[in-house]
Amino acid sequence: MALIVQKFGGTSVADPDKIKAVARRVLSKQREGHRMVVVLSAMAGETNRFVDLAGQMQDSPDPREMDVLLASGEQVTVSLLAMAVKAMGSDAVSLLGDQVKIHTDDRHTKARILDIDQEVINRHLDAGKVVVVAGFQGVTADGEITTLGRGGSDTTAVALAAALKADQCDIFTDVEGVYTTDPNICASARKIDRISYDEMLELASLGAKVLDIRSVTIAKRHKVPVQVRSTFTNNEGTWVVEEDKSMESNPVSGVTYNRNEARITVSKVPDTPGTASRLFSPISREGIVVDMIIQNTRDGNLTDLTFTVPRTDYKRAMEVLKQAAAETGAEGVTGSENICKVSIVGVGMRNHTGIATTMFEVLANEGINIHMISTSEIKISCVIDEKYTELAVRALHDAFKLAE
Amino acid sequence: MALIVQKFGGTSVADPDKIKAVARRVLSKQREGHRMVVVLSAMAGETNRFVDLAGQMQDSPDPREMDVLLASGEQVTVSLLAMAVKAMGSDAVSLLGDQVKIHTDDRHTKARILDIDQEVINRHLDAGKVVVVAGFQGVTADGEITTLGRGGSDTTAVALAAALKADQCDIFTDVEGVYTTDPNICASARKIDRISYDEMLELASLGAKVLDIRSVTIAKRHKVPVQVRSTFTNNEGTWVVEEDKSMESNPVSGVTYNRNEARITVSKVPDTPGTASRLFSPISREGIVVDMIIQNTRDGNLTDLTFTVPRTDYKRAMEVLKQAAAETGAEGVTGSENICKVSIVGVGMRNHTGIATTMFEVLANEGINIHMISTSEIKISCVIDEKYTELAVRALHDAFKLAE
Repeated sequence: MALIVQKFGGTSVADPDKIKAVARRVLSKQREGHRMVVVLSAMAGETNRFVDLAGQMQDSPDPREMDVLLASGEQVTVSLLAMAVKAMGSDAVSLLGDQVKIHTDDRHTKARILDIDQEVINRHLDAGKVVVVAGFQGVTADGEITTLGRGGSDTTAVALAAALKADQCDIFTDVEGVYTTDPNICASARKIDRISYDEMLELASLGAKVLDIRSVTIAKRHKVPVQVRSTFTNNEGTWVVEEDKSMESNPVSGVTYNRNEARITVSKVPDTPGTASRLFSPISREGIVVDMIIQNTRDGNLTDLTFTVPRTDYKRAMEVLKQAAAETGAEGVTGSENICKVSIVGVGMRNHTGIATTMFEVLANEGINIHMISTSEIKISCVIDEKYTELAVRALHDAFKLAE
Repeated sequence: MALIVQKFGGTSVADPDKIKAVARRVLSKQREGHRMVVVLSAMAGETNRFVDLAGQMQDSPDPREMDVLLASGEQVTVSLLAMAVKAMGSDAVSLLGDQVKIHTDDRHTKARILDIDQEVINRHLDAGKVVVVAGFQGVTADGEITTLGRGGSDTTAVALAAALKADQCDIFTDVEGVYTTDPNICASARKIDRISYDEMLELASLGAKVLDIRSVTIAKRHKVPVQVRSTFTNNEGTWVVEEDKSMESNPVSGVTYNRNEARITVSKVPDTPGTASRLFSPISREGIVVDMIIQNTRDGNLTDLTFTVPRTDYKRAMEVLKQAAAETGAEGVTGSENICKVSIVGVGMRNHTGIATTMFEVLANEGINIHMISTSEIKISCVIDEKYTELAVRALHDAFKLAE
């Protein structure tokens, strides 16, 4: 008898029939003898509706009130699923964030889970009930409702699985699992059977949307086996698990890309201590997150600084930087919104040599110029012109034999 | 500086523009220097939507889960109103039933308020905030969400006003106040300026829908001055207050009617101890509420029992009674669904004689036969054929000079 946490996203509970389908799926697992905890998102579209309503009330909706509003969405789905399970002859109970006691800090709309009380859930599990938990929400020490931000229901599910020491956490979504690359771009993309936490972390940071990065971090820390799988089929999905030897045989596990960044170059910056800080401080004060940073030394104590920012922050970053550059005596600021970061990821890179070289050759053979390079132990990213995105992804997918 | 509780129903918060109008109305009062507590219902239509969704999940939706579902409706309106108030430059905070601590018993979907914590609300009021409370909902000692049943937001508002010792409680609705009778039937119906708690209780029990009966009971017990008024005008409404001398000058304050009942007669019942109990026990076991009961003694130790039941329970009650009547040796059971109970209400009746006689004469003059009569200290009700409803109401309204 295992303890299984299953999380269903908004498209999986979008209407009454889909909610009943979820109930059937959960019960079929319970009837195999397992203890079942289910985590739900709000119905697809509800969050957008709430954001729209809030926007009609207040230009920048108050974060505390926004959380009260948003949290009502999961309240609807969890109560409906509990009813559906009961109608099918089993017992169930819905629990909201404050009823479980999913304690978070008080950063409204982007709160972090501090700890989860196990007592209430275990009591209901002991009574044979399916426990249906509202995802995405928690409660502060003062009893204020909080939400966890984008991907919050994944985080709730994995954090619950960790707290309850669950045997596995199934994340049901509208795709079959984690792919070697985006199937919309590359027809030979293949579902990955098993992937390590570290690889999944890199893929999530690099823009793969299948699992929220915080949930992967929690899964890794607490060694929770996570299965990403489809709501609409019974196929086995992708297991996100601890690294093992077999994963190292292939140097590359996946190819990913991110078209949501923009590149900025500050050229001929005087290469003196404190200059970088004077350039980046005003950007961080604006709340703009800088991703890749590359510095190339020029001759004559001058340096070129290139970095990427979210594309939505590009214009604001350029304005801030033009002033900061003038103050530091840099020559000028240039940039481009039409870039793409293409990355290869794999724990096997640690033991295989020449992976970077192969990547650069593949891109060069396609006539693709590389603007920036950044690497980690298990990842190589290249910034290229956006128009080459699909070409680069397919070429790398082929070169590293990911379709096999 | 007064403490004012204002309650707005579902039609008053049905869309973003209406919610903003509520915010403006509350703030205009706050700017006069008053401490403001606002109680809201869910948006009009939401409760029906939830009931429909629940019905698709489970034939008789689980009451506990129903309450979780229903309570999400007020969560939406209170957070939106708090945002709207903030956008208008004042401060506000929304509070759910469990955040205020509106403690109730655990009778899900029809819970009763046990007590209300004042600490949280007072703290926010002291900080100058508009406190926006979710109506209709509470929390049990175990932290379970409950709802108060039909008219529950009125109850929340009056109970809050009582607990906080508010100076007044405004119930905003879609009519201008309490009328001398239904304006849809009688064109000369007039808005009542002041009415006593006891009269309002009779009117509410008799089917006037403007104020929930439980809220009037609480208002009476705690002497909360309640004003029933329109959301859509600035007119003074009807004050429901303690009885005073001026109210006694007119013998009748209002005429009301109820077409939702049916009449049942069990004839020639052996007049022995325990017979009535043997007839009514099976009805109460079915959960059917009996309203008026009249017993007429016949000759020969036989009696006729006539009573009314909700029209929706008529068929079931007839079936149950036919069997019970046979067992007690009664001759037979007859009944009619086409009846109407017309009532006149007024504290002045206590000091005026001949009010009943006048009522019977008025009906007789119109050729209306009276099937049943029932009286209290401040009320006289007559059951007549349904087809005479409008005629009877207008004749009584005229005879007691209520238009003046």
